[in-house]
Amino acid sequence: MTRTDSGPLSGPLAGQLSGPHRTAVLDGLTGLFAPRGIAVVGVSRDPRKLGSTLARSLGGFAERGGHLALVNGRVPGLHASVAAAAQDAPIDLAMICVPAPASPDALAEAAAAGARAAVVCGGGFAESGAEGVGHQERLAAVVAETGIRLLGPNTSGFLAPHAGVTASFVPGVAQVRPGRVAVVAASGGVNHALAFLLTEAGHGVSLAVGLGNAVDVSAPDVLDHLVDDPATGAVALHIESVADGPRLVAAVSRLAESRPVVALVVGRHDIGAFAQSHTGALATSWRTTRAALAQAGAVLVGDERELVDAVGTLSVRRARPARRPGVGVVTAQAGPGLLLLDDLHGRDIRVPELAAATQGTLATLLPPLTFQSNPVDTGRPGPEFGRVLRTVAEDPEVDVVAAYALHEPDAVDLLAAVREGAVPDVPVVLGVGGAGAEVARSRADLLDAGVAVAADPRGVAAGIGALLADARARARRAGTDTSDTAPTGTDTSDAAPTGIAGQHDEHQAKLLLDRLGVITPARRPCATRAEAHAALSELGGPVAVKVLDAAVLHKTDIGGVHLGVRDPAELDAALDAIDKIGGSGGSGGSGGSGGSGGRRYLVEAMAAPGVDLVLGARRDPVFGPIVVLGLGGTAAEALADVAIRLAPMAPADAADMVSELTGRALLDGWRGGPVCDPAALGRVAAALGAVLVANPGIDEIEVNPLRLTDGGLVALDAVVIPATVVEEVSDAQPDQ
Amino acid sequence: MTRTDSGPLSGPLAGQLSGPHRTAVLDGLTGLFAPRGIAVVGVSRDPRKLGSTLARSLGGFAERGGHLALVNGRVPGLHASVAAAAQDAPIDLAMICVPAPASPDALAEAAAAGARAAVVCGGGFAESGAEGVGHQERLAAVVAETGIRLLGPNTSGFLAPHAGVTASFVPGVAQVRPGRVAVVAASGGVNHALAFLLTEAGHGVSLAVGLGNAVDVSAPDVLDHLVDDPATGAVALHIESVADGPRLVAAVSRLAESRPVVALVVGRHDIGAFAQSHTGALATSWRTTRAALAQAGAVLVGDERELVDAVGTLSVRRARPARRPGVGVVTAQAGPGLLLLDDLHGRDIRVPELAAATQGTLATLLPPLTFQSNPVDTGRPGPEFGRVLRTVAEDPEVDVVAAYALHEPDAVDLLAAVREGAVPDVPVVLGVGGAGAEVARSRADLLDAGVAVAADPRGVAAGIGALLADARARARRAGTDTSDTAPTGTDTSDAAPTGIAGQHDEHQAKLLLDRLGVITPARRPCATRAEAHAALSELGGPVAVKVLDAAVLHKTDIGGVHLGVRDPAELDAALDAIDKIGGSGGSGGSGGSGGSGGRRYLVEAMAAPGVDLVLGARRDPVFGPIVVLGLGGTAAEALADVAIRLAPMAPADAADMVSELTGRALLDGWRGGPVCDPAALGRVAAALGAVLVANPGIDEIEVNPLRLTDGGLVALDAVVIPATVVEEVSDAQPDQ
Repeated sequence: MTRTDSGPLSGPLAGQLSGPHRTAVLDGLTGLFAPRGIAVVGVSRDPRKLGSTLARSLGGFAERGGHLALVNGRVPGLHASVAAAAQDAPIDLAMICVPAPASPDALAEAAAAGARAAVVCGGGFAESGAEGVGHQERLAAVVAETGIRLLGPNTSGFLAPHAGVTASFVPGVAQVRPGRVAVVAASGGVNHALAFLLTEAGHGVSLAVGLGNAVDVSAPDVLDHLVDDPATGAVALHIESVADGPRLVAAVSRLAESRPVVALVVGRHDIGAFAQSHTGALATSWRTTRAALAQAGAVLVGDERELVDAVGTLSVRRARPARRPGVGVVTAQAGPGLLLLDDLHGRDIRVPELAAATQGTLATLLPPLTFQSNPVDTGRPGPEFGRVLRTVAEDPEVDVVAAYALHEPDAVDLLAAVREGAVPDVPVVLGVGGAGAEVARSRADLLDAGVAVAADPRGVAAGIGALLADARARARRAGTDTSDTAPTGTDTSDAAPTGIAGQHDEHQAKLLLDRLGVITPARRPCATRAEAHAALSELGGPVAVKVLDAAVLHKTDIGGVHLGVRDPAELDAALDAIDKIGGSGGSGGSGGSGGSGGRRYLVEAMAAPGVDLVLGARRDPVFGPIVVLGLGGTAAEALADVAIRLAPMAPADAADMVSELTGRALLDGWRGGPVCDPAALGRVAAALGAVLVANPGIDEIEVNPLRLTDGGLVALDAVVIPATVVEEVSDAQPDQ
Repeated sequence: MTRTDSGPLSGPLAGQLSGPHRTAVLDGLTGLFAPRGIAVVGVSRDPRKLGSTLARSLGGFAERGGHLALVNGRVPGLHASVAAAAQDAPIDLAMICVPAPASPDALAEAAAAGARAAVVCGGGFAESGAEGVGHQERLAAVVAETGIRLLGPNTSGFLAPHAGVTASFVPGVAQVRPGRVAVVAASGGVNHALAFLLTEAGHGVSLAVGLGNAVDVSAPDVLDHLVDDPATGAVALHIESVADGPRLVAAVSRLAESRPVVALVVGRHDIGAFAQSHTGALATSWRTTRAALAQAGAVLVGDERELVDAVGTLSVRRARPARRPGVGVVTAQAGPGLLLLDDLHGRDIRVPELAAATQGTLATLLPPLTFQSNPVDTGRPGPEFGRVLRTVAEDPEVDVVAAYALHEPDAVDLLAAVREGAVPDVPVVLGVGGAGAEVARSRADLLDAGVAVAADPRGVAAGIGALLADARARARRAGTDTSDTAPTGTDTSDAAPTGIAGQHDEHQAKLLLDRLGVITPARRPCATRAEAHAALSELGGPVAVKVLDAAVLHKTDIGGVHLGVRDPAELDAALDAIDKIGGSGGSGGSGGSGGSGGRRYLVEAMAAPGVDLVLGARRDPVFGPIVVLGLGGTAAEALADVAIRLAPMAPADAADMVSELTGRALLDGWRGGPVCDPAALGRVAAALGAVLVANPGIDEIEVNPLRLTDGGLVALDAVVIPATVVEEVSDAQPDQ
């Protein structure tokens, strides 16, 4: 494949274009990734220095007729400057291989000589202390003054193997084969590691970029560049930290429309000190970053191998959008088929029983007594293998086919079989067991024929998992407003109330929930003990009796909550206890007439039993308003079992939150208990998020517990945190 | 490496040997895996039939001078029978490739002709219905009559590539390279899949066996055969179902003394119908099988890729035994180093801060401002890389070294570096990023030099995880009695009480716990209401009041448990409610004098608050007595978060159970709560297991809840199930 896209943009008129190509031109990344000429600045006589290695790596560019200029004013025979090199032919890209202190001047000189882009490969900048920060700031100043686009510093470069531009100082990069996967990596090392792994897996890369310190070019820039890149079939995104959450989300969202994006986020576990030394502080959480990317349409993976499996598979073909896609499993050997099925189940992938008609056809193709209802075990495969694949792919419940076979050319020609079995819109991922050159050739042929291949059942399952995650994300997007660039369409519920700010006591917080359509228990705010007694009489026992004071955040801890109060005597005892609480409004007298010091009470009907959830909306420092759903109770908290969404979100997106909880079985009639309606929970979650988005005066709303009862979801307690006190309550304890 | 072990055993005197070689001779597997001559029975003229393919696969055996005889009485030019073939030279092994109905006769003929072993490759036996069961039973009868050892039926064979014996009908098996990993797989397909993956990873195999229907030769036979095999450095064990739990555990335990065993157990998720069609019923659970194998000293992995990484790494070298081993991490690129560190943390692997002296030495080797405390980031590596490896390996806290570097021969010679960095007893796993033939050669050279290699950070982490799991298992075994073949040494606690049988009410069950040294609350069994009032007065309120009746298993469900009873009036109300319960001893009268119908009560001091656990001992149908520990409460149950051990067990083994719970943070002072002493919990777990082992009259003891309080572990309720009613109570609900 050749870079047919960049031709029209690299001419002198490129800067004046508008319309669909506008973004690419403004970004100027064509000069970086598809340069007409390249100058390597700082080539030394020592063949082991960066500049020399880089010049060798770019040999392929020169061989294709590209203008490669070696620049070093102190080495006879080389160009004295970029300007001198640019006299022969245009230099779009300067690879700057001089020490950090000299880099800003070299960058400025390159810009003055007409270079549109530069890469600063070396280290010695912000990652290495105060002096380096100064060098980096000078680089940023040159970028701001000249408009030159800068990749790095502190990166090993980038690879555009279709164009022979392997602009990296790692010697083996010429081995990276051209392919359809683009890599956008935070780190130069990971960029190379992934490019090599994709090559070894038979996929290769269309473009592979390591961002390094990202003074100028950052992940959203490259993602935007890839939107119209015909050489790229899928994108691998590696994230260590996020500078601008909304910008990243918007870029992923735009790109995922046309290209699947698979994201690997580092930092699931505590790697703080080393991560900080490498990338700076991590202001948000791993979970929030993953949730944000998933919501934007990316497929999330847990490690670099799954990344290669997932993005490689998706680079071949996407599955059609589907809310509940199903997999047909075909295996030529039962044992590997069991490994595959076990793995698919572990990913919560649906393997539906095949339709009666499908099974009827299979019965004519296969010997009796093999398993044919899904998975389909062919027994030792023969010429019927292609028809089996086709029959399964045509089943109405099947969106993708997962298959495995040992390489047995005596028994079956797999290439002929997948051609015979091809059904439009139903991708096949085929695991081929075997070793040696003949097997490698067979896998390459299958890949060329449009079938994603893997070496083992796990690779098949990982590829299938990615196809389905992408299919679900696309269905979600298709079901929501896609006319703008918001992560997943705008909230279609009624406009959220505005003007909310300041302190809220529990009653006020629950009035807000009432406005949002969230069920709260019947209750009476009481200014006196007499009002409390009237409330008990009106509501009937048992009731909950609580201190009502916006300044009290942990009512239970100070004896401010009394449950199961049944009669006037018990009520008096509860009110006595509440009056004893010190602080703003306590009366202090145990037998007094109550409320005398301004102490107020909330008398509330007791809720039915059920399963407690915690649902909150707060502001993430990187991504802005988010909604967090978790199971209540100590055990769930210890397991950190939560689902996260950016706000605003579509209710359908919010409804999916329940399915992400590890303990979701508890919400589905566990031991005869209540069943959660995900849509109802989604509406509450979306509404809380919308309130936070619409009201800068508040920083957090937490409903804890939100109880799932036979009568639906009931908010038993709620806290609203005004914008000014967020530090103090960020880890508020649950209380009622 | 050649098979120097089998020489002395294959002569005519082999059957008369005794002493250390006795097991191998009795098993007779030398005739199977190291035959002097092989007959392929049923070679057809069609080159695509099994027999023909098999004969081609065995070409390497003939090329090495082995006696390979092709047998088919109906094909001119071939031997008419095994007996005829055996006239030229001994035939030890018959590969039987005739249809299922003819196989028993062919097997008998081979045995009569002097063959010591046979493989029946084809299907059509027990896996395929009633007729096949008959054929399989006839095979078993021939084995019993003749003593011939039989692999299969329904297997694709085995591979012993060092001897050229690739006895498989899969054509590519000649590609499987000789190596140091033995594969023992339930399925022929998985056996081949693993052999190919091990070859592609550069390891190869010493022996690879697919057991198929396992009429005769089963996993324990092959594991025993491997104990003295000098060609085997580590063993990969694939398990689908277990016929004889204790025999498997004993074999793994013996083998793990001399060879690391890595086990992959299929069936984590619900794959029931297909699994049953392939392997028969699964009588035990995935969790129990894994727990049993781990206790026997195996390293457990979750998928076939981890299996290859783990067993490949362990085949190079084991780490020294260590209870809390530590890893030194060295990376030449920060980004891949972060992936590696994140993965190690996810495996609960300790990455200790390096000693001051180590950091001091590193500071002389590395530029300032790289991260040097562990992980060690070298920056772009140079000639100092070997000294860095050595310095880290010599740190007193470091038992193994995890390293990663891109292949950059201009910058560093990795082979020279690992040689310079070698420290006895401290294995290194080195990830080498790169692609192409030169990188493959570099990895092979490193492997030859005694360094396990991987292509990516995940492979390094998986290998390190396996080294450490093996080191911990060896330390555990070294710390217990290893003089016998019990899984992990015998229980060193006092002898368990015997003679326990029959019905136990709660008080009797708790008396048993008292004898075991388990704390129970102060309590009084009461036959009358008057006794109950006396008990309240004696114990002081609040108390728990419960129905006391061995026939009632779910007290709470029927209103038989009343908590927080404070005074005589509340006690009467509780006793009234208990008396209302129907059944064996209820009096039926709400205001009566109580206990009149024989109803008995348990009055018990209320326990302090804490964290509830569930601890039970029961009989697994495959593995025998087991102990199960879980967190109490609904959420923990929904998450199925349990640890399992076979009984009897060493208390130290039992103490490790806590560390396996996902929610273990709850037992370690969560939010100011109590801290669990693992040794104390281990003593209770070991004691319960010992009771079950010593008392065939009972089938289960369950303590639920076992509460962790500030005062230690307290058994709040206990149930003892006599041997006869096990079916009814296998999923007993928690109650108090």
